[in-house]
Amino acid sequence: MFDGISLDKLKEECGVIGIYHQKNIDVSKMVYYGLYALQHRGQESAGIATNDGIRTHQHKAMGRVAEIFTDEIFRKLVGNVGIGHVRYSTTGESYVGNAQPLTVFYRRGSIAVAHNGNLINADLIRNKLEDDGVVFQTTIDTEVIVNLIARYSGDGIENAIKRTMGLVKGSYALVVMTENQLIGVRDPLGLRPLCLGKLEDGYVLASESCALDILGAEFVRDIEPGEIVTINQNGVSSKKVNGVSKRASCIFEYVYFARPDSIIDGVSVYEARKNAGKLLGKEHPVDADLVIAVPDTSIPAAIGYAQVSGIPSEEGLIKNRYVGRTFIQPDQSSREMAVRLKLNPLKSVVTGKRIILIDDSIVRGTTSKKIVTNLKEAGATEVHMRVSSPPVAHSCYYGIDTPNRKSLIASSQSVEDICREIGADSLGYLSTDRLVESTGLGNEHFCLACFNGDYPIDVEKSKCSRSFNRLKT
Amino acid sequence: MFDGISLDKLKEECGVIGIYHQKNIDVSKMVYYGLYALQHRGQESAGIATNDGIRTHQHKAMGRVAEIFTDEIFRKLVGNVGIGHVRYSTTGESYVGNAQPLTVFYRRGSIAVAHNGNLINADLIRNKLEDDGVVFQTTIDTEVIVNLIARYSGDGIENAIKRTMGLVKGSYALVVMTENQLIGVRDPLGLRPLCLGKLEDGYVLASESCALDILGAEFVRDIEPGEIVTINQNGVSSKKVNGVSKRASCIFEYVYFARPDSIIDGVSVYEARKNAGKLLGKEHPVDADLVIAVPDTSIPAAIGYAQVSGIPSEEGLIKNRYVGRTFIQPDQSSREMAVRLKLNPLKSVVTGKRIILIDDSIVRGTTSKKIVTNLKEAGATEVHMRVSSPPVAHSCYYGIDTPNRKSLIASSQSVEDICREIGADSLGYLSTDRLVESTGLGNEHFCLACFNGDYPIDVEKSKCSRSFNRLKT
Amino acid sequence: MFDGISLDKLKEECGVIGIYHQKNIDVSKMVYYGLYALQHRGQESAGIATNDGIRTHQHKAMGRVAEIFTDEIFRKLVGNVGIGHVRYSTTGESYVGNAQPLTVFYRRGSIAVAHNGNLINADLIRNKLEDDGVVFQTTIDTEVIVNLIARYSGDGIENAIKRTMGLVKGSYALVVMTENQLIGVRDPLGLRPLCLGKLEDGYVLASESCALDILGAEFVRDIEPGEIVTINQNGVSSKKVNGVSKRASCIFEYVYFARPDSIIDGVSVYEARKNAGKLLGKEHPVDADLVIAVPDTSIPAAIGYAQVSGIPSEEGLIKNRYVGRTFIQPDQSSREMAVRLKLNPLKSVVTGKRIILIDDSIVRGTTSKKIVTNLKEAGATEVHMRVSSPPVAHSCYYGIDTPNRKSLIASSQSVEDICREIGADSLGYLSTDRLVESTGLGNEHFCLACFNGDYPIDVEKSKCSRSFNRLKT
Amino acid sequence: MFDGISLDKLKEECGVIGIYHQKNIDVSKMVYYGLYALQHRGQESAGIATNDGIRTHQHKAMGRVAEIFTDEIFRKLVGNVGIGHVRYSTTGESYVGNAQPLTVFYRRGSIAVAHNGNLINADLIRNKLEDDGVVFQTTIDTEVIVNLIARYSGDGIENAIKRTMGLVKGSYALVVMTENQLIGVRDPLGLRPLCLGKLEDGYVLASESCALDILGAEFVRDIEPGEIVTINQNGVSSKKVNGVSKRASCIFEYVYFARPDSIIDGVSVYEARKNAGKLLGKEHPVDADLVIAVPDTSIPAAIGYAQVSGIPSEEGLIKNRYVGRTFIQPDQSSREMAVRLKLNPLKSVVTGKRIILIDDSIVRGTTSKKIVTNLKEAGATEVHMRVSSPPVAHSCYYGIDTPNRKSLIASSQSVEDICREIGADSLGYLSTDRLVESTGLGNEHFCLACFNGDYPIDVEKSKCSRSFNRLKT
Repeated sequence: MFDGISLDKLKEECGVIGIYHQKNIDVSKMVYYGLYALQHRGQESAGIATNDGIRTHQHKAMGRVAEIFTDEIFRKLVGNVGIGHVRYSTTGESYVGNAQPLTVFYRRGSIAVAHNGNLINADLIRNKLEDDGVVFQTTIDTEVIVNLIARYSGDGIENAIKRTMGLVKGSYALVVMTENQLIGVRDPLGLRPLCLGKLEDGYVLASESCALDILGAEFVRDIEPGEIVTINQNGVSSKKVNGVSKRASCIFEYVYFARPDSIIDGVSVYEARKNAGKLLGKEHPVDADLVIAVPDTSIPAAIGYAQVSGIPSEEGLIKNRYVGRTFIQPDQSSREMAVRLKLNPLKSVVTGKRIILIDDSIVRGTTSKKIVTNLKEAGATEVHMRVSSPPVAHSCYYGIDTPNRKSLIASSQSVEDICREIGADSLGYLSTDRLVESTGLGNEHFCLACFNGDYPIDVEKSKCSRSFNRLKT
Repeated sequence: MFDGISLDKLKEECGVIGIYHQKNIDVSKMVYYGLYALQHRGQESAGIATNDGIRTHQHKAMGRVAEIFTDEIFRKLVGNVGIGHVRYSTTGESYVGNAQPLTVFYRRGSIAVAHNGNLINADLIRNKLEDDGVVFQTTIDTEVIVNLIARYSGDGIENAIKRTMGLVKGSYALVVMTENQLIGVRDPLGLRPLCLGKLEDGYVLASESCALDILGAEFVRDIEPGEIVTINQNGVSSKKVNGVSKRASCIFEYVYFARPDSIIDGVSVYEARKNAGKLLGKEHPVDADLVIAVPDTSIPAAIGYAQVSGIPSEEGLIKNRYVGRTFIQPDQSSREMAVRLKLNPLKSVVTGKRIILIDDSIVRGTTSKKIVTNLKEAGATEVHMRVSSPPVAHSCYYGIDTPNRKSLIASSQSVEDICREIGADSLGYLSTDRLVESTGLGNEHFCLACFNGDYPIDVEKSKCSRSFNRLKT
Repeated sequence: MFDGISLDKLKEECGVIGIYHQKNIDVSKMVYYGLYALQHRGQESAGIATNDGIRTHQHKAMGRVAEIFTDEIFRKLVGNVGIGHVRYSTTGESYVGNAQPLTVFYRRGSIAVAHNGNLINADLIRNKLEDDGVVFQTTIDTEVIVNLIARYSGDGIENAIKRTMGLVKGSYALVVMTENQLIGVRDPLGLRPLCLGKLEDGYVLASESCALDILGAEFVRDIEPGEIVTINQNGVSSKKVNGVSKRASCIFEYVYFARPDSIIDGVSVYEARKNAGKLLGKEHPVDADLVIAVPDTSIPAAIGYAQVSGIPSEEGLIKNRYVGRTFIQPDQSSREMAVRLKLNPLKSVVTGKRIILIDDSIVRGTTSKKIVTNLKEAGATEVHMRVSSPPVAHSCYYGIDTPNRKSLIASSQSVEDICREIGADSLGYLSTDRLVESTGLGNEHFCLACFNGDYPIDVEKSKCSRSFNRLKT
Repeated sequence: MFDGISLDKLKEECGVIGIYHQKNIDVSKMVYYGLYALQHRGQESAGIATNDGIRTHQHKAMGRVAEIFTDEIFRKLVGNVGIGHVRYSTTGESYVGNAQPLTVFYRRGSIAVAHNGNLINADLIRNKLEDDGVVFQTTIDTEVIVNLIARYSGDGIENAIKRTMGLVKGSYALVVMTENQLIGVRDPLGLRPLCLGKLEDGYVLASESCALDILGAEFVRDIEPGEIVTINQNGVSSKKVNGVSKRASCIFEYVYFARPDSIIDGVSVYEARKNAGKLLGKEHPVDADLVIAVPDTSIPAAIGYAQVSGIPSEEGLIKNRYVGRTFIQPDQSSREMAVRLKLNPLKSVVTGKRIILIDDSIVRGTTSKKIVTNLKEAGATEVHMRVSSPPVAHSCYYGIDTPNRKSLIASSQSVEDICREIGADSLGYLSTDRLVESTGLGNEHFCLACFNGDYPIDVEKSKCSRSFNRLKT
């Protein structure tokens, strides 16, 4: 999750939600509550679009859900169908023009789309569309998708989406809104999650099931890879694109991105994390006094590790919940303070103790180093770091904000080197096989490219450079 | 001009400016100062886009120029070419997505366009483009224009603009920016003004010459109807579209819209207004003690009337300069107070006097009625209203925000009726011929449709309904 | 008046208003409209306090009236008695803690005070009160006044005010609000103005009568120097402090500060200014083609000058109404642009003409120089500057923001020198006697210290240094 | 801790910090980081005041630390001594005029004070001071304190504070700043905490030791009840007021208010909470499957309960960290959703399980009821509530925001009634003796009035009504 003081984590890029109510009820506030539940998936911007059967109404802005919407805005967001989006801030293209949902007018009315994911071949398609005279107003892939859908809409929206899915490559969980229906789409590899819930008189599509809980919606099922789910007054119908063979869901949803109270593709995120902790305890046991989690995401793994090792788990790092995005950085001399302000060691717990420090992942290694240092300064005699996922050694092209490969500490250093670099007394990563095992699903279910470099889509072939075509500010 | 307390005036829709500097100098602040000089043409939103030869940088927001731009924003608005836009608030479609300039990416890079005017056949072209798969993200005509230009750009931007001009009907003064040039375009009828100025090492295009004065630019000439002026490192070049026969510049620029220190199509706005006042004095003389203007736009006409009549001109209505857009309306009981707060009669001047009240135009008649009442309450014994333009009896379709025809007091009432309605002792409008005479130009130069209903383009044929296609909020 | 681009003017420090309604009606919005009419007297901060008979409610903030108050705030500002204040920004002490009204709780309830003026001996009294254990929370004189009133309140508020007036020296027009009355006070010399108006069921006290006009209040009379006017359910009563001998009202109210539609001490500000222009025309005639005012305050003087000289008056400088406080300064190279942006010469009027330029005052001379330069660049062949007040050569200690004496161009330079400095072809100031004559009142009515250094109160004796005692930010 | 969706907790009123640096270094940013660490003690307003030896500089505003301070503000907050304050929002008196620190000018310079606590006899002293002519500008007790200190300052600040402590009754932890020293004061009963830390070249006073950790300050000791600690260029000195006999520190700091990483009066808050959980497990054992904490404050108690009972502890309620103060309330129909949005049950963990739900306290019982309901709806078969403190049955008068006694569920209902009311299967509160035991200190150390009604100061005698004397808005 994002914090003013940036911790060393991979960043999710988006969360989406869509609600269709079969009665004449405004759904904008329900979308809003759902976005709250998905806020961990993106804090850069948020937006809601609704449709009252005639017109689309929308509001989007930079910032968090809590900062953007007011009662006055909700008075305008009328309609029984609505979609919402939260977006994470990636460098350089962070301005309100790129916020979602993206609403366009096309020959048959209007379409609004909210998208979680990243297309590999967006620039190629952009180029082709531009050759055909199309202009673009944003730098987000969603604009490519919505152009294709509008272009192919002659045979109906669903067919247009199907044709679009035949052209775009990459990851995408979409919610699409028209005047009278809500459509959910998941890419053929199932890279990004999307699930369906049922309200008393309506349906919800959301990136994670935790958004369903908030709305009192009953979880129905996950959208399948390559599936198009259409919701309207007649209820729910489904289509599948042809030729979906393999599957490659992002395993990092279980490692870090998703909320622990979500169930993704049938697997409880909490249970997967706890299992990962247990397996980690078996793979990398160590004689120590206490198991301590880096809060909040690593807590389930720490519980698992403690249970399997018999070593007690305690709170050892207190997280400051008030450090916001506008945090003013300390001067040169005291940059370590920032991490301590965010995560303060609990001296009375750690002093004189041999600590097993559980984190879910290490990206650059910078935060880990500071936490280890702070724990030792607080009196820990030993710090054994245990990571409930394998070393992240490869960049992601499917919607996750990974730094340049060179910045990934595991891309060039051995586990021993990393251990030395972060100052730990020992370091153990969960193996890829055990991580997969923690989910109860098979290897064939997942994209594990960030660990092993085995990308499910050939990235290089699909890319083209468009560096000239960028709008700033 | 727009005021928190809305006075009874026609509203201009936009002002545009473009600057090309031949040296490597950031022009964004120059665009900003120019927008200040054009602020009277629109206060709803403002925007600036610049290009540094590689990328477009832009910032636009709701509000006035003074509220929108900061030093931090200017640090990002780099580039030696830039365009700017101010927009007036018309009902219902007032949101930041409709602010200009509109910047798009197309096959050859990026184009940014700022547009003053209104297309008659925008919806027809939209429909055709949508049939071809194009999507739209705003409800402004400018998006139609930019799509056409991009679509036809294969033979170069200038030719694309030429083809576009062959398709669109209506009023448009455009400034168009690409990576390496600035282009100014005026519609074939010359409905909206646009002029060219010269900086030491560059050029300026602006809706009015007052923007040139601010920048210390030398006035070169007005852009001719149907002319495309291209400015780049080689200087200025020009093309004309074929088949421009008649001309129809908006005479209301002289009556009310333009600043008095502007020169439009060779005619000083101030002198035209003063002449109108003189001619009004000859057409509608009356025995009275004082000539009083409704400030600020009617002051030149009052000076003219006073000179020709020999009756002294005084300040008789004091305008409150601090009444902003956020003015909180008084309760039911005291709505008249609002006009008095805006324009307070100067009792010591008007008491016991027979007043000739000069206004440049009457639209609905509501403000006139209140001013006459207030002057009489302040002690004026007689109020003779003189209007330095003819009765406004027809709506405008070329970029001016006229109310529904039924709301135009002169559409259904005679001069006598209007006089009685507003409570004046006598009422005289300048005749259309005299108004034309005040500019020193001929009848054939102008669109006089708002007075006589003689539209230069057949409006009905060019329109189509698109009420379903609207984005709100 | 204050402008983002600072023109060369003396600055008023405050405006006050108080309303007492004898029916159970909330007066806060009436105070608000009144503050709009007084906004020219101060734009730094504004505040309103009301009393519902039990509690004081208040809101004050930095900025202009239009920016500060909302419907939500008005819902809280209940009560049939209210006072308001606008404050001008003087250097260094500009923060919200110094905004007024100042409300305190004392032994008998609460008092709120709004103050226009400046005490000469505030620091002396502060010291004495501090010796007595009193603490202060602001750096405004008003806090001294309110402490004295509370301290002497044993014999009733009116007597307390009387005793306070016996101690404080300097200028003050006060409106004082308690749970059940509104009190107006004017200092014994009558330095700052204050007048009384009558509503249907209530009364208004205001710095200027233009605020009465807005509220539809009937002008009753000016408060006399040394008078205490008390308004409550029983109506209006009055007391005078003893020993008021001489009078010294600020003549600059007529020259520049007040609105032309105000009547102060029986004299129309507009008429005084026009008279000053006439007398200026007699004192300093010159052969020329046009009379041009520096808008807006100099327009009446220009009308007078034109009438007496027979030379026509025209608009020759167009004022940009949109230049706000947040105006971003141009870079080094083009600082002159700022004045031109604010006041653009009307070329078609001035070209080839010999101009008589009328301004109401010259302080530093910086703006005059730029205007003369701009007029000549616009084509004026001669610029004869005429000033409708005498040279400002001495600082003011009674509430006017005069710069350091050294900055006053007339403190060290002769009229010839100034003429050369500003680049005018000739320069004439109205003499002090003629300025007094313009008001129709006698010399004994006015403080003329800024012209002749003859201060009505011995300033040096009353001052003490308190430089250590300042709160910033 | 405060949340947009208000949970059922007692509310702390304030946190204070002061820093004195013996080198010429600006301390404002250090104060800022310290306030971040204390933010849980109050989120209504925050302020910082600094002194550079000559002048006081200050900034305070409504909102959280992260929202209030900017680099621009820090450029003004110069000085090597500074104090800061965070304040909790109590009903009705929440406006910026009541924010702290409170800075006043008095006869010897300036004093700034930040205060955590509540005086019992503030109104009595106010009345006496007002009888003596003193006026007040706020409704906070701090203004009474600062008036007394200034009044008695003839013998030096320390003696003035001593005399002030002889008069005021109630709770107070103060940091006081003058031009050249920083003073810390703790009330004679030690009701509110205050501790001292050492920087390399300076000292820190703070409500909690967690603020010291952030600054890298070494914990020196707690300030003793009745102690005055003075810090200046000569280092630290200390005085004690006479006649301090008993002690009455607030035990709720351990139960809920303080951060777990703080050490207060020698006792680790984390350890005390864990001990309370262990003792709770012994007092109220129950056969169940899982121990679940209401996050975050109850986690240590849950760990303790789990350890002593052998029943595993899991995460069962996921807290949404993004629910801010501006959260828009759902409509009538779905108010329960608010608590679920804040605390979502983790279905996969709780389904089919018998839950021991650990909370640190129950105030009104409203949240407990919703959590129990939500857990059961999520599938828990039994919910046994265990509270790690005794029933809160009496209001606090020493700085804690307790609701009206009638709203305290335990004031009128038995444990059995409460159990039924909240829908739990069983309910057990920790006894007062065990709570005291959890801290390792004796009964004589604590104020336990909220549990047993035994107030350390006679409240009724010290109070007087001042309902008329209130400023709103």
